[in-house]
Amino acid sequence: MEFLSGQTQKETLELQELLDASRIGTVVKVNGMVHIIRDMGELSFVVLRKRGGLLQCIFEENAVNRNDCVLHEEEAVEVTGVLEQDARAPHGIELRVQEVRVLATPYDAPPLPIGKWKLGTSLEAKLNYRSTSLRNIRERAKFRIQEGIVRGFRDFLYSQQFTEIHTPKIGSKGAEGGSNVFRLEYFHRPAVLAQSPQFYKQMMVGVYDRVFETAPVFRAEKHNTKRHLNEYTSLDFEMGYIDSFEDIMQMETGFLQYAMQLLAREYAEELQILDITLPKTDQIPMVRFDRAKELVAEKYHRAIRNPYDLEPEEETLIGQYFKEEYDADFVFVTHYPSKKRPFYAMDDPADPRFTLSFDLLFHGLEITTGGQRIHDYRQLLAKLAARGMTEEGMEQYLDTFKYGLPPHGGLGIGLERLTMKLCGEENVRETTLFPRDLSRLDP
Amino acid sequence: MEFLSGQTQKETLELQELLDASRIGTVVKVNGMVHIIRDMGELSFVVLRKRGGLLQCIFEENAVNRNDCVLHEEEAVEVTGVLEQDARAPHGIELRVQEVRVLATPYDAPPLPIGKWKLGTSLEAKLNYRSTSLRNIRERAKFRIQEGIVRGFRDFLYSQQFTEIHTPKIGSKGAEGGSNVFRLEYFHRPAVLAQSPQFYKQMMVGVYDRVFETAPVFRAEKHNTKRHLNEYTSLDFEMGYIDSFEDIMQMETGFLQYAMQLLAREYAEELQILDITLPKTDQIPMVRFDRAKELVAEKYHRAIRNPYDLEPEEETLIGQYFKEEYDADFVFVTHYPSKKRPFYAMDDPADPRFTLSFDLLFHGLEITTGGQRIHDYRQLLAKLAARGMTEEGMEQYLDTFKYGLPPHGGLGIGLERLTMKLCGEENVRETTLFPRDLSRLDP
Repeated sequence: MEFLSGQTQKETLELQELLDASRIGTVVKVNGMVHIIRDMGELSFVVLRKRGGLLQCIFEENAVNRNDCVLHEEEAVEVTGVLEQDARAPHGIELRVQEVRVLATPYDAPPLPIGKWKLGTSLEAKLNYRSTSLRNIRERAKFRIQEGIVRGFRDFLYSQQFTEIHTPKIGSKGAEGGSNVFRLEYFHRPAVLAQSPQFYKQMMVGVYDRVFETAPVFRAEKHNTKRHLNEYTSLDFEMGYIDSFEDIMQMETGFLQYAMQLLAREYAEELQILDITLPKTDQIPMVRFDRAKELVAEKYHRAIRNPYDLEPEEETLIGQYFKEEYDADFVFVTHYPSKKRPFYAMDDPADPRFTLSFDLLFHGLEITTGGQRIHDYRQLLAKLAARGMTEEGMEQYLDTFKYGLPPHGGLGIGLERLTMKLCGEENVRETTLFPRDLSRLDP
Repeated sequence: MEFLSGQTQKETLELQELLDASRIGTVVKVNGMVHIIRDMGELSFVVLRKRGGLLQCIFEENAVNRNDCVLHEEEAVEVTGVLEQDARAPHGIELRVQEVRVLATPYDAPPLPIGKWKLGTSLEAKLNYRSTSLRNIRERAKFRIQEGIVRGFRDFLYSQQFTEIHTPKIGSKGAEGGSNVFRLEYFHRPAVLAQSPQFYKQMMVGVYDRVFETAPVFRAEKHNTKRHLNEYTSLDFEMGYIDSFEDIMQMETGFLQYAMQLLAREYAEELQILDITLPKTDQIPMVRFDRAKELVAEKYHRAIRNPYDLEPEEETLIGQYFKEEYDADFVFVTHYPSKKRPFYAMDDPADPRFTLSFDLLFHGLEITTGGQRIHDYRQLLAKLAARGMTEEGMEQYLDTFKYGLPPHGGLGIGLERLTMKLCGEENVRETTLFPRDLSRLDP
């Protein structure tokens, strides 16, 4: 009988291993995709794309056993050669090739110039050839940054004794209400796709106190803007035993600080590729919704049209105001009007027209919505009744409160928006691997 | 202007802090849910449920400032008292209460005896009162184990230079084909829910070499068994530059070893609560599909009815065989028949009736399907044609191969099934927070 031990010895080396100075001058074997070929006649520079980064290889006429093969871009190859130092090459090393073996051959040249530093094609073209455009070094770097954010979110929350949960995306009722739910038939019964894990994470507060989830959510909104997606990754947490909703904002501030440190430490190469300056997270200002409206109205000479609504331009100006006045990249806007928040939001006892809730703006874009929730059963029923909402389909959610739940609150962060602002992009589709919008269902 | 610094100082202590021996004899403040009340007349034992575990509190008549309140089970409270050692209490400590403050009051007694060691109710009742039943210590421990598995999966793969991806769950076409897809309308266009991230993770191999995703998948299968769910969490990875599909099995073996070590190290309390003995992962046997059928046919005197299919009882017997013969908890079954695998599976060049693929059985239950994929464009087109399948809706997937992709393969692990077997449960719904099956769409 054969057994597997979990150990695999590979002859091929990864980029990090090649950067070990003791390898210089030795014969090494590496694999990768042919990213760029620069044919100089008797000499060719072939840059390999590896997961760790680019590696320059030098092919000298007659010096290479090519097995009669001609290299093409996007060919998967394994090359053997002598590792040398060269300050001009990526990472300061290059490989003088002795032998090459082709692992897989493309059948056509890529439709986009992926070897270029900047792709220089339209967003539309990038999305239409997604599995090609993402091979560009700058394009792929954005989604490594995205990984760092999610990783930071989870690792920070683990350290704060949160438990990770997985809640269903098909259900009988949407948590946020309204018409923006996708509907489907579930074995001859009407069902909807989850707009958020809201109900479930509140239910789980009674189990673990602190829970989080990183998962897709679905919004059937007919918005066609640069900041809306119909499916996105939501970073959600919910925490019990809060003293006020400030506890939630502090927790988010802690996450942002942790994530930026993680990025600086483990994603330095991607930050450099994308020329990202990490935003300031040590002190995040907090301003009331109504006060924020006044501040931008005064400074930028705008009339306040609707005191209970925030226009996108006002959001942008709030971001501008806090950058100019406090050099702040983020700002918490608190006490949103009750009418603009879902039924489960806790109204401010001091003025029930407003809620104990907040948005976090990053350079003027809302990337988080959160707040304290109602935890008292009768108060929740009264709020539902006051809004003329039915309890139908919410029985088990409401049972959670009937049988006791501590004071709690939480938030949801839009991963793609946070990545977009961090990468300095203008369209959220730029930081979504395979975006879903009004017109895009493929790839 | 007010600023948030990410720092919150709380007076209340968590269980881990209470276990610090220097706290014994001091006055401490804690919060938690009233899990059990044992009223002994002049003395009451009140066990608090905290996220870290249970804490026993002693209420002596007249010694406690109760603010005239009577405690109820599932009340959220904050208590202050002297911390004492008591070997009979959970974790060897208890709190002699001086003061109690009620944070939130339930409106009814819980419908299930959640304070009991074992709930002792039917699965149906547990699921009908899910946010209550999960408050039971043993019930909630199962989903901490589940967290440990997912965490182990991600952390191990990060260490192996995999990149995490987030792929869309709404698309125009199912990756696995067949009729078991949920259909929905996407802005007046037909769409389906993802059966797996298969196409996307293969597309991403050309970008990062190694990718993984932990996300929900949807199967509209009309199975009503103890091991099927219509929505589950799939742990998927895909890796390039493999020498053979053994590389994938080695990677999975490495993950299992890592995850079991993580559970032993960080989830010891939950393992103890559930009386779990971790399975052996140091050496995992590997057997061909046809050979496995022969082995169980010989040993258990069964006729082989269909040489190209594996019946559930055969899976169970393969598990039994390898436990009896090799004391193995896991076994890789390799070379599944081509007819039983999707079009993208690579056929065995030595015998194209079989594929370079595998399942991993855990105590006789399939928890993983994986294998090498076709990476050559024309070979893939030929396989599609041979199966009479259309390329429609797969253009961008196929483009990935046209423009070059290295040899690769991967797998998908059913998280709930792996948790189920680890916890020794008989029904996968026992290890699913909010299961979705033929009849269950709520909660």
